[in-house]
Amino acid sequence: MGEFDLIARYFQRPQRPYTGAVRLGVGDDCALLQPAPGTQLAISSDMLVEGRHFFADVDPATLGHKALTVNLSDLAACGARPLAFTLALSLPQADEAWLAAFARGLFALADAHDCQLIGGDTTRGPLNICITIFGEVPVTESGSRALLRSGARPGDELWVSGTLGDARLALEALQGRRQLPPAALQAARARLEQPTPRVALGLALRGVASAALDVSDGLLGDLGHILRASACGARIDTARAAPLLATQGVALGDNERLSLVLAGGDDYELLFTAPASHAEAVVAAGLASSTPVTRIGRIEAEPGLRLVDAAGRPVTGRYASFDHFA
Amino acid sequence: MGEFDLIARYFQRPQRPYTGAVRLGVGDDCALLQPAPGTQLAISSDMLVEGRHFFADVDPATLGHKALTVNLSDLAACGARPLAFTLALSLPQADEAWLAAFARGLFALADAHDCQLIGGDTTRGPLNICITIFGEVPVTESGSRALLRSGARPGDELWVSGTLGDARLALEALQGRRQLPPAALQAARARLEQPTPRVALGLALRGVASAALDVSDGLLGDLGHILRASACGARIDTARAAPLLATQGVALGDNERLSLVLAGGDDYELLFTAPASHAEAVVAAGLASSTPVTRIGRIEAEPGLRLVDAAGRPVTGRYASFDHFA
Repeated sequence: MGEFDLIARYFQRPQRPYTGAVRLGVGDDCALLQPAPGTQLAISSDMLVEGRHFFADVDPATLGHKALTVNLSDLAACGARPLAFTLALSLPQADEAWLAAFARGLFALADAHDCQLIGGDTTRGPLNICITIFGEVPVTESGSRALLRSGARPGDELWVSGTLGDARLALEALQGRRQLPPAALQAARARLEQPTPRVALGLALRGVASAALDVSDGLLGDLGHILRASACGARIDTARAAPLLATQGVALGDNERLSLVLAGGDDYELLFTAPASHAEAVVAAGLASSTPVTRIGRIEAEPGLRLVDAAGRPVTGRYASFDHFA
Repeated sequence: MGEFDLIARYFQRPQRPYTGAVRLGVGDDCALLQPAPGTQLAISSDMLVEGRHFFADVDPATLGHKALTVNLSDLAACGARPLAFTLALSLPQADEAWLAAFARGLFALADAHDCQLIGGDTTRGPLNICITIFGEVPVTESGSRALLRSGARPGDELWVSGTLGDARLALEALQGRRQLPPAALQAARARLEQPTPRVALGLALRGVASAALDVSDGLLGDLGHILRASACGARIDTARAAPLLATQGVALGDNERLSLVLAGGDDYELLFTAPASHAEAVVAAGLASSTPVTRIGRIEAEPGLRLVDAAGRPVTGRYASFDHFA
């Protein structure tokens, strides 16, 4: 089976006409994208590598889902509406069963978000998936309405969506570093392999949140990006954060639980800030998007990050975020 | 050295303010791109893998050049003006000397085309380079001015830029399948490792060419894409094509030479069609962009591809184009 047949069979879908901003998709040297007047494109690119981001024996359908989730999550963090994506794929062999399942998982999520595949590349090599995604953000006279990392201000409250640490829990179990009861492993593994991109919440937070990003490397490490970009510090109430681990039926010490929540990684939840006066609007955005939101701390003028307990006393511990080259 | 430091050191260039369509670049969850009114974005994504697209010991500076060339060439084929690109990079280790040289080669070409790096990803894994590039094409009341593969019509003349087959000649020499005199190897190798993206020619061909693409997999295979998309056939005059191999001082049989030219691959030249009435305009576009252009045949209504000699007699031979999964 030739490269071009392969691309055509699994990734060209002529039955679906390109719509909206997409003027030309798969099949020419370039795709053509024309954002609506009064909008700009939000663009993100992520690369997933076997053995680092997923296991060799992962179900290809969940891998297709996750590969797009990682990118949709970046759009969500900017408050961008998904439009389209390109897919570059390096494969050790042209395995039709694998490709069919990967494409099924990928397109199920893409279709749910009305996000069209408009181009890409296929080559032979170690398994590698690189998706570049495009979303639309309104631009008004006062500028872009994209949610950025740089908008946090002292006094803003710190929020996070959904649950944290479950993906890391599953990873440690799959690596044989931890034993989990079957039900707990199943629940945690779903969070690792099929995370939900928080696109609807991101859209609902436009004009509400002051800064946002998605938690991919661990809450503390990612919060550090907001603090640097916004030139401020923060305080996290660990009593509010610790319960965010959703997996039940696992015996964990307090420090261990907190470490999973604060430094787990692969969560694909939104971490965002909002003025205290927007607290009700944040809760409304969570309800409107059917996404749980939890207030876990606040932004402060003093640089650095402080972990405190319910009574405001300092909590000590080492919670390093995941770093690919550490 | 941590992942984020590495990205920051080699790929963030805060000293260069983002301009034009680029509203936000490296450092947030998404980049923000806003095409000028009356334009649309041309988008292309290519993935280069060690051992398939380049040798492990390739000079990293020439690799940086070539990785961007492959993408710039796609923009050229659409007649798009380069704006920006994302870079996703999987590296076996954080080798600072390698990264510095790769970045130097990459940015030298990017700067020459005023094409800004706006985002991407870095991870540990087998060496893999995925660039997604963005260019700008005008849209008029009669539609997009992008050059597509589908616009060729019977009677159009078939043209190609530059030289063909030299990259393949170098590849065969480097693989030990062919002996070349040192001067010939050096010349051919420059075409393999440092091809020139025909961006200026692509821009000059807007409104002149009826169809275009870039020759990456071999002339015949790539011409096949135009013929399928345009639903027509073509005739190539082998007497005009054979001299397009530029490397001198190599003893080659007629068939061997023709095979290199017609099915070599990795050429990154533009293959395009234009109405016969536009022949002078094509020559003018070549002159204006300092790019040689050669007329090698014509588009015909009869499906299929016919190779003929100077007297119009059929030429037989097997010239399969390169296929990654063949």
